[in-house]
Amino acid sequence: MDSDYLIIRAAKKQPIERTPVWVMRQAGRYLPEYRATRAKAGDFLALCKNPDLAAEVTLQPIDRFGLDAAILFSDILTPLEGMGIKLSFNPAPVIHNPLRAAADIAALRLPDPDDNVPYVGQILDILVPELRERVPVIGFAGAPFTLACYAVEGGGSKLFSKTKALFFEQPALAHQLMEKLTAMTTRYLNYQIAHGVKMVQLFDTWAGILCPDDYQEFVFPYVRQIFAGLDQPGKVPKIYYINGGHQHLSAMANTGCEVVGLDWVADLAQAKDLIGHKVALQGNLDPNVLFANPEVIRAKVKTILDKQGPASGHIFNLGHGIDKEVNPEHLKVMVEAVKEFSAR
Amino acid sequence: MDSDYLIIRAAKKQPIERTPVWVMRQAGRYLPEYRATRAKAGDFLALCKNPDLAAEVTLQPIDRFGLDAAILFSDILTPLEGMGIKLSFNPAPVIHNPLRAAADIAALRLPDPDDNVPYVGQILDILVPELRERVPVIGFAGAPFTLACYAVEGGGSKLFSKTKALFFEQPALAHQLMEKLTAMTTRYLNYQIAHGVKMVQLFDTWAGILCPDDYQEFVFPYVRQIFAGLDQPGKVPKIYYINGGHQHLSAMANTGCEVVGLDWVADLAQAKDLIGHKVALQGNLDPNVLFANPEVIRAKVKTILDKQGPASGHIFNLGHGIDKEVNPEHLKVMVEAVKEFSAR
Repeated sequence: MDSDYLIIRAAKKQPIERTPVWVMRQAGRYLPEYRATRAKAGDFLALCKNPDLAAEVTLQPIDRFGLDAAILFSDILTPLEGMGIKLSFNPAPVIHNPLRAAADIAALRLPDPDDNVPYVGQILDILVPELRERVPVIGFAGAPFTLACYAVEGGGSKLFSKTKALFFEQPALAHQLMEKLTAMTTRYLNYQIAHGVKMVQLFDTWAGILCPDDYQEFVFPYVRQIFAGLDQPGKVPKIYYINGGHQHLSAMANTGCEVVGLDWVADLAQAKDLIGHKVALQGNLDPNVLFANPEVIRAKVKTILDKQGPASGHIFNLGHGIDKEVNPEHLKVMVEAVKEFSAR
Repeated sequence: MDSDYLIIRAAKKQPIERTPVWVMRQAGRYLPEYRATRAKAGDFLALCKNPDLAAEVTLQPIDRFGLDAAILFSDILTPLEGMGIKLSFNPAPVIHNPLRAAADIAALRLPDPDDNVPYVGQILDILVPELRERVPVIGFAGAPFTLACYAVEGGGSKLFSKTKALFFEQPALAHQLMEKLTAMTTRYLNYQIAHGVKMVQLFDTWAGILCPDDYQEFVFPYVRQIFAGLDQPGKVPKIYYINGGHQHLSAMANTGCEVVGLDWVADLAQAKDLIGHKVALQGNLDPNVLFANPEVIRAKVKTILDKQGPASGHIFNLGHGIDKEVNPEHLKVMVEAVKEFSAR
């Protein structure tokens, strides 16, 4: 049964025999086998759209490390293409027709996922049966504000000045954009659920650039709406992650998610005191710890596990995506330390 | 009397007639008059070391906007030169002999400020008498961890992986480095106090990349030590600023500073609830708000002032340095809004 998966039980604070562990960006450039498969596909976007090869890279870290969940191989920006946004990666994302005016936002389409991202359904149709006896597949999407940041700015940014200028100067237009992205994202996650994902993570990577007032106005209502609009309520736990989102912790716990994903600068014990009665927690090893030696990695893993203690309700992860320069053997040390130190 | 300065009274929570305001990086590239003076000096480092021109750019925003404090024109990295670190700007800082091994750290000298940074004393000797009847001059220094980040990494970084590897793998060596930087910084700030600064700000820009445990181990004791080691205790208020330091707010208030500098993602009302009984607060308008129109700027200023209410103990500032693309007229709107809305 789906609810027998270790990670699902941890998300629901049900009894567990040890702490489950997976890693953001676990199928990625730090793995030589990933680099080999990507070379076969061509570039990153071609890999995302090649179901066989995308499924292959998804499975690589599961086979190598014995992680407790696979995560759909894709990028948060790919579903924007069907809305009319022109996207490429080199390797940073570039949006060739950034949204700047009311007409740009009015022109955004609300695509059917079967037309927009058929490869996502096809990847899941390979992965879910393949992994059924082992681990669940986590689906994911970018949260609307984070998608808006890229779409307005035209790519990544340090300050997201254009995005903020639009949100601060034309709030009604910003809300229109958020509504469209929310509708698309809800539909996209439900499509993934229909194709068998057993858990979803909503990545709100850039919501940390906002103060709490702006978060309440522009972000919170839409995240709540997405979570409330997902199919199979209670069966498919929802993880909500913000990078640099310490100022939003209480709000995050009120979005309707079952799990709050912590970045690495949060303190798990403090977060547990603050919101642990409402939600499970995911995280939160500093990704940079994986550049240190195995002894340090083991000690830092233990410190985090000790903050949680024996209670269920914790999914071990890094506090951010794994860096492409990490030695895979160091990740192995981390995964084995989680399993060893958390055994009940 | 020094204690009559509006900003000093606000820092000490004494009665004020309105909220004082200054801006991080207020003497900077967004001002055409600054760009003209810098062109005369040559490059940025040459400007820092030219007392007449450095004093000139310090005064420009005071004259233009009627700000309530001047801040020494310099860079947090310049005092590292006398320790043996080779520095240039192009325009981002580059350190040509980054600290990587025990021998590098052992070789660091503890210079006399009169030999190391004579131009800082000379700038202050021009500025302090010139401004005495108007506003105080704020001195500043980079906090030891932030200096260590640049010195180990060799410049700025997104992840500061090399710094973290050193701190995590060789903690004893990291503490040696922190001790040396702490001694240098204490001496440097006392030198500025001797030359007449009436307030100091310690910039711990990068301490936000650490989790609270690592902050307690590697940062907090040294910041406390610096503040405890400053001359004229009680007379020269100390501001302590971290960018992205929401997770450290309680610790910041325990460093011995009189004022905690908030970044723009903190909520002033929440920070006041948490630490307002111990310290005054500085901040915290989102620097990006200055890209919006005057109406938005005024509304956002008012929101922040309303969070503080009529009590003293607030210094208005941005939550981070002003961006070089900002229209100076927009900063004028901000300063005038602070003065108008905060009048008692």
